[in-house]
Amino acid sequence: MSYFANIPPVAFEGTQSNNPLAYRYYDADRRVLGKTMREHLRWAVCYWHTFAWPGNDIFGAGTFERPWKPGQPVTSEFAQIKLDAAFDFFSKLGAPFYCFHDVDAMADHDNLASYTKELDAIVDKMEGKIAETGVSLLWGTANLFSHPRYAAGAATNPDPDVFAWAAHQVRSMIEATHRLGGENYVLWGGREGYDTLLNTNIGQELDQLGRFMSMVVEHKHKIGFKGSILIEPKPHEPTKHQYDRDTATVYGFLKRYGLENEVQVNIEANHATLAGNSFEHEIATANALGIMGSIDINRGDPQNGWDTDQFPNNVSDLTPVMYYILQGGGFRTGGFNFDAKIRRQSVDAEDLFHAHIGGVDVLARALLAAASLIEDGTFDEFVTMRYSGWQTGFGRKVMAGEMTLEQVADHAIEKNLMPGPVSGRQEYLENLINRAT
Amino acid sequence: MSYFANIPPVAFEGTQSNNPLAYRYYDADRRVLGKTMREHLRWAVCYWHTFAWPGNDIFGAGTFERPWKPGQPVTSEFAQIKLDAAFDFFSKLGAPFYCFHDVDAMADHDNLASYTKELDAIVDKMEGKIAETGVSLLWGTANLFSHPRYAAGAATNPDPDVFAWAAHQVRSMIEATHRLGGENYVLWGGREGYDTLLNTNIGQELDQLGRFMSMVVEHKHKIGFKGSILIEPKPHEPTKHQYDRDTATVYGFLKRYGLENEVQVNIEANHATLAGNSFEHEIATANALGIMGSIDINRGDPQNGWDTDQFPNNVSDLTPVMYYILQGGGFRTGGFNFDAKIRRQSVDAEDLFHAHIGGVDVLARALLAAASLIEDGTFDEFVTMRYSGWQTGFGRKVMAGEMTLEQVADHAIEKNLMPGPVSGRQEYLENLINRAT
Amino acid sequence: MSYFANIPPVAFEGTQSNNPLAYRYYDADRRVLGKTMREHLRWAVCYWHTFAWPGNDIFGAGTFERPWKPGQPVTSEFAQIKLDAAFDFFSKLGAPFYCFHDVDAMADHDNLASYTKELDAIVDKMEGKIAETGVSLLWGTANLFSHPRYAAGAATNPDPDVFAWAAHQVRSMIEATHRLGGENYVLWGGREGYDTLLNTNIGQELDQLGRFMSMVVEHKHKIGFKGSILIEPKPHEPTKHQYDRDTATVYGFLKRYGLENEVQVNIEANHATLAGNSFEHEIATANALGIMGSIDINRGDPQNGWDTDQFPNNVSDLTPVMYYILQGGGFRTGGFNFDAKIRRQSVDAEDLFHAHIGGVDVLARALLAAASLIEDGTFDEFVTMRYSGWQTGFGRKVMAGEMTLEQVADHAIEKNLMPGPVSGRQEYLENLINRAT
Amino acid sequence: MSYFANIPPVAFEGTQSNNPLAYRYYDADRRVLGKTMREHLRWAVCYWHTFAWPGNDIFGAGTFERPWKPGQPVTSEFAQIKLDAAFDFFSKLGAPFYCFHDVDAMADHDNLASYTKELDAIVDKMEGKIAETGVSLLWGTANLFSHPRYAAGAATNPDPDVFAWAAHQVRSMIEATHRLGGENYVLWGGREGYDTLLNTNIGQELDQLGRFMSMVVEHKHKIGFKGSILIEPKPHEPTKHQYDRDTATVYGFLKRYGLENEVQVNIEANHATLAGNSFEHEIATANALGIMGSIDINRGDPQNGWDTDQFPNNVSDLTPVMYYILQGGGFRTGGFNFDAKIRRQSVDAEDLFHAHIGGVDVLARALLAAASLIEDGTFDEFVTMRYSGWQTGFGRKVMAGEMTLEQVADHAIEKNLMPGPVSGRQEYLENLINRAT
Repeated sequence: MSYFANIPPVAFEGTQSNNPLAYRYYDADRRVLGKTMREHLRWAVCYWHTFAWPGNDIFGAGTFERPWKPGQPVTSEFAQIKLDAAFDFFSKLGAPFYCFHDVDAMADHDNLASYTKELDAIVDKMEGKIAETGVSLLWGTANLFSHPRYAAGAATNPDPDVFAWAAHQVRSMIEATHRLGGENYVLWGGREGYDTLLNTNIGQELDQLGRFMSMVVEHKHKIGFKGSILIEPKPHEPTKHQYDRDTATVYGFLKRYGLENEVQVNIEANHATLAGNSFEHEIATANALGIMGSIDINRGDPQNGWDTDQFPNNVSDLTPVMYYILQGGGFRTGGFNFDAKIRRQSVDAEDLFHAHIGGVDVLARALLAAASLIEDGTFDEFVTMRYSGWQTGFGRKVMAGEMTLEQVADHAIEKNLMPGPVSGRQEYLENLINRAT
Repeated sequence: MSYFANIPPVAFEGTQSNNPLAYRYYDADRRVLGKTMREHLRWAVCYWHTFAWPGNDIFGAGTFERPWKPGQPVTSEFAQIKLDAAFDFFSKLGAPFYCFHDVDAMADHDNLASYTKELDAIVDKMEGKIAETGVSLLWGTANLFSHPRYAAGAATNPDPDVFAWAAHQVRSMIEATHRLGGENYVLWGGREGYDTLLNTNIGQELDQLGRFMSMVVEHKHKIGFKGSILIEPKPHEPTKHQYDRDTATVYGFLKRYGLENEVQVNIEANHATLAGNSFEHEIATANALGIMGSIDINRGDPQNGWDTDQFPNNVSDLTPVMYYILQGGGFRTGGFNFDAKIRRQSVDAEDLFHAHIGGVDVLARALLAAASLIEDGTFDEFVTMRYSGWQTGFGRKVMAGEMTLEQVADHAIEKNLMPGPVSGRQEYLENLINRAT
Repeated sequence: MSYFANIPPVAFEGTQSNNPLAYRYYDADRRVLGKTMREHLRWAVCYWHTFAWPGNDIFGAGTFERPWKPGQPVTSEFAQIKLDAAFDFFSKLGAPFYCFHDVDAMADHDNLASYTKELDAIVDKMEGKIAETGVSLLWGTANLFSHPRYAAGAATNPDPDVFAWAAHQVRSMIEATHRLGGENYVLWGGREGYDTLLNTNIGQELDQLGRFMSMVVEHKHKIGFKGSILIEPKPHEPTKHQYDRDTATVYGFLKRYGLENEVQVNIEANHATLAGNSFEHEIATANALGIMGSIDINRGDPQNGWDTDQFPNNVSDLTPVMYYILQGGGFRTGGFNFDAKIRRQSVDAEDLFHAHIGGVDVLARALLAAASLIEDGTFDEFVTMRYSGWQTGFGRKVMAGEMTLEQVADHAIEKNLMPGPVSGRQEYLENLINRAT
Repeated sequence: MSYFANIPPVAFEGTQSNNPLAYRYYDADRRVLGKTMREHLRWAVCYWHTFAWPGNDIFGAGTFERPWKPGQPVTSEFAQIKLDAAFDFFSKLGAPFYCFHDVDAMADHDNLASYTKELDAIVDKMEGKIAETGVSLLWGTANLFSHPRYAAGAATNPDPDVFAWAAHQVRSMIEATHRLGGENYVLWGGREGYDTLLNTNIGQELDQLGRFMSMVVEHKHKIGFKGSILIEPKPHEPTKHQYDRDTATVYGFLKRYGLENEVQVNIEANHATLAGNSFEHEIATANALGIMGSIDINRGDPQNGWDTDQFPNNVSDLTPVMYYILQGGGFRTGGFNFDAKIRRQSVDAEDLFHAHIGGVDVLARALLAAASLIEDGTFDEFVTMRYSGWQTGFGRKVMAGEMTLEQVADHAIEKNLMPGPVSGRQEYLENLINRAT
């Protein structure tokens, strides 16, 4: 019997409902701006936090008692119980998607051969679950950071043998993702960076990472995988510094290795804020640079300097996020993956439901708010007008590359230009956002 | 009579000296690794903090009483008194270089024509001072952030007329820098970013900035300026977000607009740390990406989240910084500019001397320590050995692009690779640094 | 004619209104939990940001063109124009309260005698304005941080003469506040701290500050002022470190000098977050320690490490804040003072209106949400139940001081206690908050 | 045979030594300011990071292969092997002290009775080791945060049964500490705080904590333990907020519960910086408030927002720290405990030696520098002179409580006081520090 047997499927009941285990805003088939909410949000449950993490932190042991014993050696039997529970959970929530790392789902391995064997075994079963439940794979990924071999990085490891191990895992998982109909393949370089610069050759490591990414892209095409390859930026943690710091940094990396048309970013809210950026900044930047891929939705704690991976709960904060996603055309292969974990004290099965229900509903509210901003058009019009001077006359010529510095400066003198400050209307625009929520 | 008349020239007196107005480590002509200390450090005094800033902060008025009345309207007379004092100060310190913004030195202007007139007037006088004192210009720059017209940015302003004003100032100052024999021209985009994303089109603004930089580069070549064009990264402040966040971000920008061989970075210590990077990280990154230019030397306060621009005072912190500069070949056109200001309570003339003497001495100590690390070679050898697996066999073939993901993965299986963790020796390496200081 | 002549009084129009210059939620006379919104919120406009600040920042000059010339020397005439504009603004907004520093409103002075004369002059006029408009004074305060004499602190200055100046200003302003019917007197120790520990005697400075506060309290009683004396905590900025870091720190200070029953805190949102606390934490802590006084309502920027003093705009964030204020019994003498400033680019008169209207409305929404949480009672009941074990049996005896460590430990052994983790239901509780907003 | 058999005892060899496994500055019997270095530093090795931690982090498994299998269930046999290795390590380093938590050293337990049994068993053996090696116990402590029962706190837990468990552990460990001749007993309230304010009653929890501390103090006196009771402040991590945020906050707590003469603080460098304070600030504050106890010496990473617990390596940073410790009279019962861990990649036995040798040497250098500052006296004299105005005349009367606000203000007017800014000489003082290092 499933671990979640006592909890009924979660239904949409509307804002008047007092049922804490119902959706109040997320009505999957409701149409917004021409698509259903399900199609807009494309949300996924993550396997790792929700099923593989035992509730430990760096100062304390796991608190979660689950039948599949997270945090203990994973036998085939436990892997099976976990898989059953996971798909039951996805189904009860009505989740259209899920995401996983190889080691989240498979039984333990101790060498390359048993890795392959155990991965194949679970992927076989997963394929059946997908067919049975209709839940789809948003993305797959390989865990290249937990095993001690990866302590000094995977692709950026000083030891080529570790690079080779990573290559095997990624080949295996990109092929598994392809087989399972996954829509994206993600690489998070959790230890692609350094603990101390003193023992590190940054140029060498970047070249290794560039080489690795190029090989992954080549392999994707070779096997005919049509999904997207995504890099997930994070500035640090567990390492002192990670090369994929944020979207702009990843863009520079992709340009350096000629990959900017092959790879996009999977932006995580909490990684964005740890990097000193706002979440919406990362999305708007990815849109501007043409590398917007997918989202890991969660939130950090403003008072804590590490990746707390909490469930999102703030409609005001998420409305601009949703607005920029819609403005960029919405998700193509991407979606919202709940890379979020319940708190260590939230030990009950129902807490997993509260967390995801709250998260999905807050996305739904933000979607409705952002859609109203799009439909209203005031926002977009304001910004367009603000830059309208660049569409005509002298401004247009500058942007077209038709003027030199000298010509522009001479123009300024000739016209005796005296531009004054123009209100940026920040408070008015903030009020507009609030009007929509 | 000069404001500094009572303070004698600062001499090297060695570590036994108790004279607080003497150098204890900086012996300009002492040779280290084949060059003099002066040639290595190429240090500069900045005009703005030292002569134009009145000692105000956002909560309080200026505290410095100087004959040239900083913070008040700058008449030609005050500009002259300030110029005389500045070159007297440079000379007494034995500073090989200085740096300035247009408005630091010139008398006030109120339109484009008077800007040109007043700038020309002071540059004429400065030329004389340079000839007279032998102090050289490390770099010039234009202030594109203080005037209200630049409230929404200079090159990234929504109003093309503001772009044109900026073009005039930059043309004027790059030409002045050229005329004065300056070795670099710097652009700090202090308001090239946004206060709120809500009114901002990032893609449009980046294109404007790309256009502007391209025009500056073209103009440099046109006038035959042989110095370097440098961008100074900073993540934010005064704006919420600045596009030139850090070295890796600037690199991506340069690649996007095809400028990576034309422009380098001017890295500031306090900007690096505000961006969430270590100072030495920024230098090592610039070395790896081939865009290392010059340094604004100062320090931030670890407990304060803004640009405190304090004088450097920590030999342990600066030794790795100096090591990476030397490892990258040392400065070509760049140098160490003291973009540092005395505290608001340091109201006396002698405080300006204490600050610079302490800063120069700490650089000299760090240089000696870094040189000893270079001469000893243990450090470099350690790092080289750590990556040596990539120089031969399978590793070499990977880096040469001769293997696919599949081939690498098959190699791993065939050899049944089982790489274990290898000590990164961080604590040993940290002790080596300490041995050198 | 008033600077705001073109803007009509701001009215409540309800959520359907599209008028950006109307309240959508703030209906002053609407009753919530037995009081009107006006009585609950007791909101105030601050004089300094709104009327005395010229729109400058540390990197740029003022941008605001106002008839009273903020940022320039304040003549009696400009003080009068400013006063008229300020009360017109308060009235048009329907603000029940305002707050001011001595120097915000008065004409410039250059010694103690002219300080007294100019302060008296403006207080005379202000008294008339209060009578005329019905706008009340929430609190008064003296500016003990802007003048160069206060560079090393006011009460904590190494120079007793500066302490004496501060005493004069505070005596004058507490008496002015009393005369104007102000409900509180606030002390923000903006420079009561240090720039460097190296020149500082913390123990001495704390004793000076303790002495000063005791004298202020004594004077309050002497003149019969019935309002509250409030300390406003801030961790740093402008100084490196301020002694009144946060609520818990102020509590320790008050206990040290026997003032915990005489002084409360004026908590500012942005100061709370700069100190590494959440805003609501500060309020809940002040409630628990019995020193909750008043609120400076604003918000910081999560990516910027200084006091940005922005207008609040996030209902989700403010709902817990409002909940804890209501739970603590609501304001007695305190209120919500908008210690918030429009952005430097918001140069128009109407921007001041957008800012305050948005801020008031977001408080009103948060009030409605918090009131519904109070009325519903689920929240309070959850927390009460969580600690219910301490109300009876063994728990009660412990809290009553009836058991020793030994007895408690023996009790544990005797009962062979094996307490397991109990869900803290964080996600469920967060969803409850969202249900209310 | 000991795990460390291949590494010879660490000796002082002086600064000319190139032996990375020798002390270059720490000469235990060298006399400085009338005491030996050993007596000044009173340094300790911590059991937890050095022997009980397996090298895991939140993203990866343990990397350390030790004969006692850290991170796996602790049998009596492994506890014995670990104990032998630990005392061999202490002895080889010449460490005068060590520190431990109950669970660091003992075999696993599963209830209160087996806790007592296993703790007694290891304490018996430890007593023998102490006698055999001459290494002393600086402090003992109980781990009240790792077991799932403590997920919601120990003394502050909503469940009184958890409080009782904590009472048993603390009683046991304070008695064990007493028996072993320990000089202090430490309480770090790692989960005495909250994960979310929403489910928390701060006032209730503070009262519980106050009660607990009072019971501990009472028990100390009852058993005749003469050592100090110390609270170790930390602002957060693992929880969102911990009540013992920093020294000033702990002081307020102690005053609230009448414990300020019974309890002191154990200040940790990395906790200080996470709380937004400088390390030396915490020491100077503890001195001023009379609650300075002991030090956990380590360092954080300026770019990482969590407790990285790295070994100290910066002489410039530690010189002021040492200066304030000496100025406060030096340690009485306290000392420098290396609450520091090698990096996860530092997998070899020798890395433990490099780390501690480097740490001890940097303390020794800082001690020499601070002693020279004390002997020179310039520093102390500067600060004394700066406040000398408070020793005489009007200043003295204010501090003596002989003047009212009114009298002080009247004095200011009468004398027409016009105090100007006086240089704080920050840069000069920073140079003095550098002169000493």
